Amino acid sequence: MALEIERKFLLASDDWRKSVNETRHIRQGYLCNDERASLRVRIVDDEKAYLTIKSGKAAISRDEYEYAIPLEDGEELIAKCAGRLIEKTRHIIRQGHLAWEIDVFEDRNAGLVVAEIELDHPDQEFEHPDWLGEEVSGDGRYTNASLSQHPYHDWT
Amino acid sequence: MALEIERKFLLASDDWRKSVNETRHIRQGYLCNDERASLRVRIVDDEKAYLTIKSGKAAISRDEYEYAIPLEDGEELIAKCAGRLIEKTRHIIRQGHLAWEIDVFEDRNAGLVVAEIELDHPDQEFEHPDWLGEEVSGDGRYTNASLSQHPYHDWT
Repeated sequence: MALEIERKFLLASDDWRKSVNETRHIRQGYLCNDERASLRVRIVDDEKAYLTIKSGKAAISRDEYEYAIPLEDGEELIAKCAGRLIEKTRHIIRQGHLAWEIDVFEDRNAGLVVAEIELDHPDQEFEHPDWLGEEVSGDGRYTNASLSQHPYHDWT
Repeated sequence: MALEIERKFLLASDDWRKSVNETRHIRQGYLCNDERASLRVRIVDDEKAYLTIKSGKAAISRDEYEYAIPLEDGEELIAKCAGRLIEKTRHIIRQGHLAWEIDVFEDRNAGLVVAEIELDHPDQEFEHPDWLGEEVSGDGRYTNASLSQHPYHDWT
């Protein structure tokens, strides 16, 4: 088990694009999602597939379990998530031993860009780059599980 | 992916006990369970842990994906299923290349005994031993996911 401690922000500008170290394409869907846990299947760059269980409320910290699975299983499981899919391009910007993950969403979430940083403990200090906007860590609408069912395009 | 094709029966007598080939103790819980899929964590004989995704309706046939996980993860995940746990002793009776699995439930499902046979295709013929009772394949109350939330003791 890993404890996922993560803070999430909107973006104030596009200046982050100059600092990108790495880029991946992600497709993911939610096979089930209830008040206790969510089960995500993710395919990265059409090459690797993972199952991820997250439990606990969508605050800053959640328990996370991740397992690599065969790509063929991943594709079959993704196909079962029709209507609950997320596609996004993830840009990684390393900052010391931490890393910003900047997700540029596609399809029904196009227009949404979110920056996340994974921390070792909830009150950990970290550098806030100029391109960082409003914090949305506590806002459940920005979880990917929620975006898969209530996409950004449907927000009013 | 495996296609799980399974028929389920109540027991007409205890005569099956004379034919048991193998016995295991099973603890399992449901981390999430919605209309699309369920995610089960199972620990067998306190030794091996598995994650199983089942998708589709609880009829005779469902898609099933199973992955071995570290026992430590299994125990942590089972602990998150408090209130949705199933404990049972599974007795296996081999019948040619098929096998009967006879589950003797415990705790809030004590008193319930169910025999299952896994088939290669839905209309496959198989021998019906004398101890076999009423078929309950189509009855959603007998799925383990349902029993974990609506246990046999609460049935009226």
